[in-house]
Amino acid sequence: MKAQRFKLTIEYDGRPFVGWQKQDNGPTVQAALEAACRGFAPDEHITVTGSGRTDAGVHATGQVAHMDLVREMTADALQGALNYHLRPNPVSVLKVEAVPDDFHARFSATRRHYTYRIINRRGPLTFERGLVWQVSRLLDHEAMHEAAQLLVGTHDFTTFRHTECQAKSPVKTVDYLTVERDGQEISLHAGARSFLHHQIRSITGTLKLVGEGSWNADRVRSALEAKNRQALGLNAPPDGLYFRQVEYDTSE
Amino acid sequence: MKAQRFKLTIEYDGRPFVGWQKQDNGPTVQAALEAACRGFAPDEHITVTGSGRTDAGVHATGQVAHMDLVREMTADALQGALNYHLRPNPVSVLKVEAVPDDFHARFSATRRHYTYRIINRRGPLTFERGLVWQVSRLLDHEAMHEAAQLLVGTHDFTTFRHTECQAKSPVKTVDYLTVERDGQEISLHAGARSFLHHQIRSITGTLKLVGEGSWNADRVRSALEAKNRQALGLNAPPDGLYFRQVEYDTSE
Repeated sequence: MKAQRFKLTIEYDGRPFVGWQKQDNGPTVQAALEAACRGFAPDEHITVTGSGRTDAGVHATGQVAHMDLVREMTADALQGALNYHLRPNPVSVLKVEAVPDDFHARFSATRRHYTYRIINRRGPLTFERGLVWQVSRLLDHEAMHEAAQLLVGTHDFTTFRHTECQAKSPVKTVDYLTVERDGQEISLHAGARSFLHHQIRSITGTLKLVGEGSWNADRVRSALEAKNRQALGLNAPPDGLYFRQVEYDTSE
Repeated sequence: MKAQRFKLTIEYDGRPFVGWQKQDNGPTVQAALEAACRGFAPDEHITVTGSGRTDAGVHATGQVAHMDLVREMTADALQGALNYHLRPNPVSVLKVEAVPDDFHARFSATRRHYTYRIINRRGPLTFERGLVWQVSRLLDHEAMHEAAQLLVGTHDFTTFRHTECQAKSPVKTVDYLTVERDGQEISLHAGARSFLHHQIRSITGTLKLVGEGSWNADRVRSALEAKNRQALGLNAPPDGLYFRQVEYDTSE
């Protein structure tokens, strides 16, 4: 029986999950998706392969995954079946597309995009607890944007990498980093072929120090050049991080 | 002892509340605020007066209220004390200002602004359950905006009014109604000196019927002219409604 490969675009609220990747210590998004598959295809042993992992409490608005299905279903029917069987998990399959067999959510990806959301105000959070990072001190988003440009390009990001990061090399190329303000909300947008574990949270934590005036741009440059995790000022919490989009050469 | 009047600007997540106004059948935002006042001023019997009620499940990003305080506190200290004692309620005091004694959150208000948020997509909600209205059928937001203009101005809104609405007259003047789309999100913005009970939810439900093509603009006009609640097509759920801003002549 020939299987059909499908590309899934997925949104999820990371709060109840210990992360994307299946593991023994709690609920994961991948496990929720594979359990949903057993709901309508109990005889197939379907693996859902993501384009990248996300940590506990990290969200996605555009995670991409692929899966193979032997039984015949249209992309629309598969989307409906997945969403039906995902309930009540806060995971939503936004789009399903039939793709060629050589499409691989992780290895075919050419660029990944993340957004980190900060609410910059004194009043505590209401709707968005766990969905943004609340920072009380007024942040200078223009200084943050300017300092961020020091981190664009190809660098050894050892300082901005979790000590348990499994990537072979600490050298990554960051295509863009922008910091914008819309009222009380500050958004950091980042894109690269791939990121190191905790790279965006470490960059965001550092830029927060710049925004509040504790660090200047020279200090950011020194931290980068130190190539030492000990030189990191601050790692931002998972709450505000969203896996926003994955690009592929073959589609999108 | 002379009391000082303060104006509060308040954000709240309506999901756990039976509404703004104190009542016996469940937690309310007003009761949460008054309980917070007892936390730092147990000897004063403080009433927190809102600019308007909101129903169960309706949210606010800019509700306004006033309260009188006899003990001496700066506006900043009062904001901190309120937010501290409000925990863990999803209610956040965004701003506190000392105001003259004749300021009244309800009677001094000259205009109220609301926003209704729709997520227009097939995939179920994740982050925003209870915070938006999800509509699966593709909505024509331009047709909604056009039909909305029929409801701008001074009209008898009996059709768009809860049967238990306590306002003396069903005649209201709607200053503006706009419908915008930003990707999968459709927002309806409305402003008026005051609104009837369920007026915005009834308008939104009606415009949703227009957006999906079930109703045309003539049908909206007929419903308005019927001046009869039975002529209403649909009342939108509370989930997507936000009390956004209150205007006063004396401030803002």
